Amino acid sequence: MHPEAFRRSGHALIDQLAAHLARAHERTVVVSPSPAPDELCVRYPATFPMEPATEAETRAFYTRVLDDSTQLHSPRFLGHQVSAPLPEAVLLETLSAFLNNGTGVFEMGPASNAMERSVLGFLAQKLGLPQGSGGLLTSGGSLGNLTALLAMRQARAGHDAWTLGTSPDLCVLASEETHYSVARAVQILGWGKKGVWPVPSDAAYRMDVAALGPALVAARAAGRHVLGVVACAGSTATGAFDPLAGIADFCAREDLWLHVDGAHGASVAMSRRHRGMLVGIERADSVVWDAHKMMMLPALVTAVLFRSEAHAPAAFAQEESYLFDGKGANWWDSGLRTVECTKRMMSAELYGALYLRGTRVFEDHIDRTFALAQSLATRITNSPDFQLAIAPDCNIVCFRHVPSGPPLSAERLEALQGELRVRIREQGELYIVQTRLRGRLHLRVTIMNGLTKEADLDALLDAIRAAARKLLE
Amino acid sequence: MHPEAFRRSGHALIDQLAAHLARAHERTVVVSPSPAPDELCVRYPATFPMEPATEAETRAFYTRVLDDSTQLHSPRFLGHQVSAPLPEAVLLETLSAFLNNGTGVFEMGPASNAMERSVLGFLAQKLGLPQGSGGLLTSGGSLGNLTALLAMRQARAGHDAWTLGTSPDLCVLASEETHYSVARAVQILGWGKKGVWPVPSDAAYRMDVAALGPALVAARAAGRHVLGVVACAGSTATGAFDPLAGIADFCAREDLWLHVDGAHGASVAMSRRHRGMLVGIERADSVVWDAHKMMMLPALVTAVLFRSEAHAPAAFAQEESYLFDGKGANWWDSGLRTVECTKRMMSAELYGALYLRGTRVFEDHIDRTFALAQSLATRITNSPDFQLAIAPDCNIVCFRHVPSGPPLSAERLEALQGELRVRIREQGELYIVQTRLRGRLHLRVTIMNGLTKEADLDALLDAIRAAARKLLE
Repeated sequence: MHPEAFRRSGHALIDQLAAHLARAHERTVVVSPSPAPDELCVRYPATFPMEPATEAETRAFYTRVLDDSTQLHSPRFLGHQVSAPLPEAVLLETLSAFLNNGTGVFEMGPASNAMERSVLGFLAQKLGLPQGSGGLLTSGGSLGNLTALLAMRQARAGHDAWTLGTSPDLCVLASEETHYSVARAVQILGWGKKGVWPVPSDAAYRMDVAALGPALVAARAAGRHVLGVVACAGSTATGAFDPLAGIADFCAREDLWLHVDGAHGASVAMSRRHRGMLVGIERADSVVWDAHKMMMLPALVTAVLFRSEAHAPAAFAQEESYLFDGKGANWWDSGLRTVECTKRMMSAELYGALYLRGTRVFEDHIDRTFALAQSLATRITNSPDFQLAIAPDCNIVCFRHVPSGPPLSAERLEALQGELRVRIREQGELYIVQTRLRGRLHLRVTIMNGLTKEADLDALLDAIRAAARKLLE
Repeated sequence: MHPEAFRRSGHALIDQLAAHLARAHERTVVVSPSPAPDELCVRYPATFPMEPATEAETRAFYTRVLDDSTQLHSPRFLGHQVSAPLPEAVLLETLSAFLNNGTGVFEMGPASNAMERSVLGFLAQKLGLPQGSGGLLTSGGSLGNLTALLAMRQARAGHDAWTLGTSPDLCVLASEETHYSVARAVQILGWGKKGVWPVPSDAAYRMDVAALGPALVAARAAGRHVLGVVACAGSTATGAFDPLAGIADFCAREDLWLHVDGAHGASVAMSRRHRGMLVGIERADSVVWDAHKMMMLPALVTAVLFRSEAHAPAAFAQEESYLFDGKGANWWDSGLRTVECTKRMMSAELYGALYLRGTRVFEDHIDRTFALAQSLATRITNSPDFQLAIAPDCNIVCFRHVPSGPPLSAERLEALQGELRVRIREQGELYIVQTRLRGRLHLRVTIMNGLTKEADLDALLDAIRAAARKLLE
């Protein structure tokens, strides 16, 4: 494709996206289309032409993909913890994809590596990590948690786990609210299902610090070699922030590694109003921070930060003559400290978004979405036909609808929540999800879009009421 | 950012990229800028303004990143196995980033999931895998190899490894030419350094099939539990394709899992002329195929294909109430079969590139780059001052320069190769890498850019000769 053809196609796509963005902002899109999976495959068959598509076919293809996708740019997308990406970040990803520079070795992406280094320093400073901290960017929180656990393993297994391998008795203590990627990482590492030893959470779904000691004793009594504690900031289901300072005290006393899964919540460090929720994170040995959640970037841009920079390369002690010069770890050959070899030029998105948009927009985004969640919680508390699961720590709100009128059986009420979720989604105007809290199904809202208004929250509660009336007719 | 502002900024960036692309094609860019890492950080400081950048600052930032990056679009980038992405693929990534749809659960990306399903079917069919095969897309070959090894572990460990964990005696047989991500994956899994039991390669750097039996006996005698064989199609250093049919015979006889790392070479399936190199791959239990190498996509788009689709979810037996409906594995909730939870909408790039460009361009790309590598090999063979390491299997050529004139000592000649590599890079007109083959340093060329011409290869050999004259002055 010639540069001029690229220019023309690029303008055409940008125009289509801008028009689509306007419609999403106007709330005139189907937020979450729900075709049957097998039917949708018919629209995207597994056969391809030999020759290129025409301009009209190209445009039609883009339109189809836009329409068959979930509309995160709609202010009425109130579901999962995925961002409505900043338009600047979309353009930065275009730049990244165009350059296709990696970061495994410095010369595969000089700017990419330099931006990664600097932006990690910025994030570490925001968290209050000490001088000598450092880390890496990687493709997602799951990989981030795996990387942190690898470093924990190498530091605390008591032998050179990387070289000698490990027995299946290793484990971490973690609350029941921990994201499933931690259990997944532990099971990848070969520690089995008991590799995560559960610590009870309190009434607010935060880790019960008093339960840590007994959990440690019990795990050891069961023959587990406990390497550390995984804390949540915040948890996935309810957004609960574990009491990091108390957990850090415990880890210091027991000489355990502290890993904080801040995939969702580490971004709170950008907000002067809310950063107090993170007190204690500066004492963590490792932190995972997803910039594609509350930093409004497209997935995936995850930072893994270590209290001591040396932990990162220690986890991956390898040499390859065609890549590294064999002189050992340095900051600029990032392949020495990631699971990944070829890595996307994700630093351009994070560094570039901070540079092009300035820091204030990120602070505002935290403050605004957290305030909206409080506002929704207040509405729910003030509505006799809604039950709030828990006062929200951040921008996640879980609740149940209990229709006024003749009381429903516990079973009917339980089933109703799931039916409401399906109904709301199918109507296409709003999108929410659900979660099970201590066995009971709840509706779940996450406010990720800075353009969501109070009126959208009112519309949600009204839509739920109307759907319930229909379902109970 | 308003849609109209996005449109204007988008056009501006596209214009900048188109102009840059033209310069890259004209070979007037510095192919691989080589500032000192710490100096470059000064240009990308770890501090950010509070307020947004102006249009002029934005433009200057893009220019700086473009100039400080490695220029894969230059036809004189002859280095690592990373693609000069198709401009259409860059635009498809823009679409993906804009939509930011995931694939963990179907409703997080209906089109994304449907395209993933279909394009995996297309790839499996290209490889000749049977009905009932299936797989997933994931972020890169390292993660792909890890995922395949997880499935292998679950299928062949002899117990429920996912639930019960594993002892450190598991291992795979693999040639010494295997990419380091396989050893890295094995060591992540906790099998230690001996988790990869080496199988010697022959004079052409292909796995020596006759050595498999003795390797199996030796590994078992050393107390290792051998789960399978990892074969290369092709290897990273020289691009050697292991004899897959012979290896498949061995695996069938010994009841071992066959994993083929086709990160670089599986794309050969697109070429009628060259696909014979892959005979035997249709008998693999798992295959990794990086679409961001020879399929001209930006990183990362990796397919992991399983002979039996059921192997993928078997590796990750988990349930989460806020994500999955608990009804067990289905094709459309892809989070059930990946290491990743949130995943990029990478199917849009692969499906879209095949749809928008048609299949012929991919076949032509393989044929053209392989022919150019042969042409370079012929030039080297015909030049008394160059030594070809090995007749290339694909588009990777390794060689040494042996300047005419008074013979150099073996040590001097060895050091000279590394110095030539540095000198060529620093001159900025061409980019090549180096690799160590059986202890001896070689220059290494990979032809990844469809616009590279015979004249570029002549220019490379001339530049090496000229650099050697300078260095030996």
